[in-house]
Amino acid sequence: MTAAIDFYFDFSSPYGYLASEKIDALAARYGRSVDWRPVLLGVVFKATGSAPLAVIPLKGEYSINDFARSARFLAVPYRRPSAFPIATQHAARGYYWLAERDPQLARDYAHACYRAYFAADRDISQPDVLHQIVSPLGIDPAQFDAAVNAPAWKARLKAEVDAAMVRGVFGSPYFIVDGEAFWGVDRLQQLEKWLAEGGF
Amino acid sequence: MTAAIDFYFDFSSPYGYLASEKIDALAARYGRSVDWRPVLLGVVFKATGSAPLAVIPLKGEYSINDFARSARFLAVPYRRPSAFPIATQHAARGYYWLAERDPQLARDYAHACYRAYFAADRDISQPDVLHQIVSPLGIDPAQFDAAVNAPAWKARLKAEVDAAMVRGVFGSPYFIVDGEAFWGVDRLQQLEKWLAEGGF
Repeated sequence: MTAAIDFYFDFSSPYGYLASEKIDALAARYGRSVDWRPVLLGVVFKATGSAPLAVIPLKGEYSINDFARSARFLAVPYRRPSAFPIATQHAARGYYWLAERDPQLARDYAHACYRAYFAADRDISQPDVLHQIVSPLGIDPAQFDAAVNAPAWKARLKAEVDAAMVRGVFGSPYFIVDGEAFWGVDRLQQLEKWLAEGGF
Repeated sequence: MTAAIDFYFDFSSPYGYLASEKIDALAARYGRSVDWRPVLLGVVFKATGSAPLAVIPLKGEYSINDFARSARFLAVPYRRPSAFPIATQHAARGYYWLAERDPQLARDYAHACYRAYFAADRDISQPDVLHQIVSPLGIDPAQFDAAVNAPAWKARLKAEVDAAMVRGVFGSPYFIVDGEAFWGVDRLQQLEKWLAEGGF
């Protein structure tokens, strides 16, 4: 039995979205499962003194072009969101709430959130947009709202972000497999070689 | 006649070194030449509010491992330098001085500097180390010293760094081909696809 790949991401991260469309199939080729773990990069950036790519001089403009080009390179549908970056704590809390009940449903929900935001330009920081995402998945919007505003699920997300930082997570996507860390969708090839060869 | 690929790098940049071992052969496959242009990331970072990877919390430790792993992934010899990062204005001024006289000699010199620093752990911020690099290339160390300390070559490097920032360069390696920018050794595949397909 091999260990799962931990996949850390923020729902507002374009490179996290691109990775989300690739990681499960990649892992499956090597008999691995993937443990999806949304975090809040805003909290992480505060701790590390970093800032979102998009607001850094020069790098911001470059990144906007690179998001779209990387999506074409990886053949993943992408449309630049009108609102960016956005707050993702509701989306992330909803994920952990669902994951506790039904991991596969939580995975479907995460894909639906990412695709709504990065392929259909729907602002997933808005409660009504999240309702439109969860309803077709058979999740009651009122129960969803209650969960994402409940102290227990706020505390759970905070604990997940804290634990991620303890493990060294500073960006999105960030993968840890067998103790080795890989940051960025552009490290998927190294991650795959690592799985294929048991390290290199 | 197709335009050259502009290759911006800092002599203290590990990813710039890795790219330097790949870019000429890649370009040649598509009938392109490469215009090597050393810059000073310290100056660029001051302008953009960035910092060297190695000093950023969490990212620093990750990077040290990723430099070595990326070198193995790309099959490029790499040894972690004892002194890092270092000042590279002498190495860079020497490059432009040589490039004016003999572009191929300047290229050989740039490779020798990068390999001395990143494969043999020799501190190329030190004048005597640069002397040991230029002598075997048939360059007189005294003339080299005079050039790298001359106001004219200080001004030339400053002008190169300023021009690079105007073009949006914010990191190393940074490539511009036909107006399209690529940042990072991990963008060489996208750069190659761009050359092969005339954009994508």
